[in-house]
Amino acid sequence: MQKISLSDKFSKFTDHWAPRVIAEVNDHQLKLVKIKGDFVWHDHDDADEVFIVIEGSMSIEFEDGIVELNRGEMCVVPKGVRHRPFAENECQIMLVEPRGVVNTGEAGGDLTAEGDVWI
Amino acid sequence: MQKISLSDKFSKFTDHWAPRVIAEVNDHQLKLVKIKGDFVWHDHDDADEVFIVIEGSMSIEFEDGIVELNRGEMCVVPKGVRHRPFAENECQIMLVEPRGVVNTGEAGGDLTAEGDVWI
Repeated sequence: MQKISLSDKFSKFTDHWAPRVIAEVNDHQLKLVKIKGDFVWHDHDDADEVFIVIEGSMSIEFEDGIVELNRGEMCVVPKGVRHRPFAENECQIMLVEPRGVVNTGEAGGDLTAEGDVWI
Repeated sequence: MQKISLSDKFSKFTDHWAPRVIAEVNDHQLKLVKIKGDFVWHDHDDADEVFIVIEGSMSIEFEDGIVELNRGEMCVVPKGVRHRPFAENECQIMLVEPRGVVNTGEAGGDLTAEGDVWI
């Protein structure tokens, strides 16, 4: 059995909006992602997802308001709820979501990350 | 949509080995637990679980060795793998596991937490 260090994993990549899978727990995955700037509006029809801020600050815009998240704070985005993550400065986050979720949901576009990338 | 602060949630309870549910993501739950001392050997036949250390240090003994986890480190315990968590000093951890997992697995005993307790 191996331990996984979040800071070690974060040190292995520098790009933004490109999730890396670090673990699977049953049919769910834990992913790390560095974000900066604005993501696209999107939703995931059939999957809740959790955003947990590991370092930095980020926001998630919903149709009825904005949730600001700092280190040690998290938010559950229920399936089907349109949302738009953004961060003024680089922010390190962990996602918990089912295997197979595409980052841009139904929206697609240049920021879409296809397939699992493990680190 | 609400944000969840891990430190706020941890401030709401003081007992050890009694997980609190803070969120559900699909059929999985995120739970917070404070641990100190020795837990029982057990396994979960049908559920992987993830231990993430939020504050402090803990260890997980497996049949072939011990994994030590500090803040920002995590470990996946696959289904069916016998393990025994322990911590010399109080440690705050987050668990990710399917809804319905009982903390003591098949072992039972005094430390068994029955049913979901949300905070």
